[in-house]
Amino acid sequence: MTIAKKIQSSIKNSSLIRKMFEEGARMKAEIGEENVFDFSLGNPNLEPPPKFKDVLLDLINDPVPGRHGYMPNAGFPETRQAVADFLSRNNRAEFASGDVVMTTGAGGALNVILKTIIDPGDEVIIPSPYFVEYNFYLDNHQGIPRIVPTKNDFSLDLAAIEDALCEKTKAVLINSPNNPTGKVYSEEELSGLGRLMEKAGKKFSRNIYLISDEPYRKIVYDGIRSPSIFDIYNESIVATSFSKDLSLPGERIGYAAINPAISERDIVSSGMILSNRILGFVNAPGLMQRAVPYLLDVSVDISPYQKNRDILCEALERFGYRFVKPQGAFYLFPETPIKDDVQFTSILKEENILTVPGSAFACPGHIRIAYCTSQKTVERSLPGFERAMRKVMKKP
Amino acid sequence: MTIAKKIQSSIKNSSLIRKMFEEGARMKAEIGEENVFDFSLGNPNLEPPPKFKDVLLDLINDPVPGRHGYMPNAGFPETRQAVADFLSRNNRAEFASGDVVMTTGAGGALNVILKTIIDPGDEVIIPSPYFVEYNFYLDNHQGIPRIVPTKNDFSLDLAAIEDALCEKTKAVLINSPNNPTGKVYSEEELSGLGRLMEKAGKKFSRNIYLISDEPYRKIVYDGIRSPSIFDIYNESIVATSFSKDLSLPGERIGYAAINPAISERDIVSSGMILSNRILGFVNAPGLMQRAVPYLLDVSVDISPYQKNRDILCEALERFGYRFVKPQGAFYLFPETPIKDDVQFTSILKEENILTVPGSAFACPGHIRIAYCTSQKTVERSLPGFERAMRKVMKKP
Repeated sequence: MTIAKKIQSSIKNSSLIRKMFEEGARMKAEIGEENVFDFSLGNPNLEPPPKFKDVLLDLINDPVPGRHGYMPNAGFPETRQAVADFLSRNNRAEFASGDVVMTTGAGGALNVILKTIIDPGDEVIIPSPYFVEYNFYLDNHQGIPRIVPTKNDFSLDLAAIEDALCEKTKAVLINSPNNPTGKVYSEEELSGLGRLMEKAGKKFSRNIYLISDEPYRKIVYDGIRSPSIFDIYNESIVATSFSKDLSLPGERIGYAAINPAISERDIVSSGMILSNRILGFVNAPGLMQRAVPYLLDVSVDISPYQKNRDILCEALERFGYRFVKPQGAFYLFPETPIKDDVQFTSILKEENILTVPGSAFACPGHIRIAYCTSQKTVERSLPGFERAMRKVMKKP
Repeated sequence: MTIAKKIQSSIKNSSLIRKMFEEGARMKAEIGEENVFDFSLGNPNLEPPPKFKDVLLDLINDPVPGRHGYMPNAGFPETRQAVADFLSRNNRAEFASGDVVMTTGAGGALNVILKTIIDPGDEVIIPSPYFVEYNFYLDNHQGIPRIVPTKNDFSLDLAAIEDALCEKTKAVLINSPNNPTGKVYSEEELSGLGRLMEKAGKKFSRNIYLISDEPYRKIVYDGIRSPSIFDIYNESIVATSFSKDLSLPGERIGYAAINPAISERDIVSSGMILSNRILGFVNAPGLMQRAVPYLLDVSVDISPYQKNRDILCEALERFGYRFVKPQGAFYLFPETPIKDDVQFTSILKEENILTVPGSAFACPGHIRIAYCTSQKTVERSLPGFERAMRKVMKKP
């Protein structure tokens, strides 16, 4: 073997989510797309809002020279300013364009942030269940994940986080609304977390950053609001994207935003701009950057997701599944009726239902159901969920 | 200080090229854009070919659902197939879609390739002068650059490369047509390099990859052709983009292509797809990927660049500058008439001419002139180049 050792072993243990996605493609080819109930990937079923198309057409027909050329690595100044203004409108703090770095999606933003702050061996505390891709993102920059399970209702276990905070902690990385649980952390939880981190920062004489990965911020139900971490903890940086609220995951457009109250604000900003450049992103895709100022207050209509959630929750509860009702995102994370979650996903696959085992989120004994599908897919899958439950319940 | 130590020190030594770019923006605001002769950045002055706009409009008006959604991490299958077909038409080898990974530009492709093959401490041989951003790209993956100067005419010094090849060598990284010299390596040079690498691979019992960074492949003059490394050396991978030949650098669209004859072809491909995902790129921007199949045989009209080259070369020779006439790309890399190249760029700046010192390419005693500007800029800059030369020639 001649490629890097780490990559060799990672290929073997490759993403369970992606494997399911590919298995799904195979099944669809075999038995027809409409007969596979694919809840494996968080690939939004809704099309982008109509305004997105109008904005793109306007931009392409607008003959500004150099619009596909290089711009500053942080992005077009007018795009950064528009995002800063949007953030100032939606948070107590006043943002400047320098606080915003346009990135290739939230995945790009997270790598830019981690590259900027992580020295080799630094620890990052992550509440679980969590998007395990974070492990790779940390490893890219020689950071170490320190996984801390959440409570049974998937809320933050502050006592456990307090125990995990140590002289090696460089950051806490949260994701709310959460993938895979749909949990939205409350203002109270986050304030508690902020107080712990402040105390630990003083104790260990170092800044501890709160990184908030929040691409699902606008996808919340029942009138709930995702609290702003900017208003809660000074040393905070947000990573986000337009992938979910505008249904654009393939276009790779997002941003990182620095709390204006952060220590060494200019240095953090310069570091992130440098990282965006040297990681090979160079800059976020130009055309999409130019569309962003027109779309900041736009969002897909999330009522179809809410409808799917309600149909699923009502039916699965009736079938005997146990779960915490999601408050946001488009994932349901029920317990599996048997201990072995991988085996239960196989049983569901016999019903042509594709889900991802909780093991893929460091939380076995669960499955993730990504309900960002058509309502028909949800409805037609229900008998399969019921049969799967009956199948395992009959066994001793 | 709380951010990563490496990033802190890199901010201080930040890119000379980018610094010049920003200095240029300041000067333009002060004395007017038309009075600053900005040759600092390889940002193409030509607009994308008209077909680009037509293709984008067609795609946006074409209501294929899910076209802004996730696709396989390697890219849309039809895009990869179209690139593979293009490569099969232009090389002796037969490419399959699996040999192509769509990336966010050549910078993304290089990071994907390096992440895939580099174990910490592995060396990569780079002929100098070279694009020093490569140092960052290697450091991202804990690789070590091994810089080997080229000959006086910027051709490969094969004897020096042979000396540098050792048991730690994982790859040789070349860039042809070259930034900053405009050199195009000949078939003979590359064959010689291939033979050396094969020999060293056998001697040290390991694959040594040839990575060819070739975004300027289509920008060549005087009927010269850039030889195909695929036809020359089996263990080869190309990184490229549409940034220069379609004038799209801000859109971040490119690809990495694996030689079909490479050892462990599937593993190299899987490794690159995984790396594209876990570095946070996830996939190349979707809309641009969809445009690619229609644009593979399209290119900007490069005659304005050739005209600029000819005007510059004729005049600078007359003024007493010494240089190797570029065969491709859009850079001229003359010797500075004084030893201190940074000082000479300051003297040129007094004439409102912005260039980059050769030190920024590990080759002091030179300047890089990026002549991807308007012809007017080139013509109006000439008196300044002449005065700068006279100024230093008068001194003892």
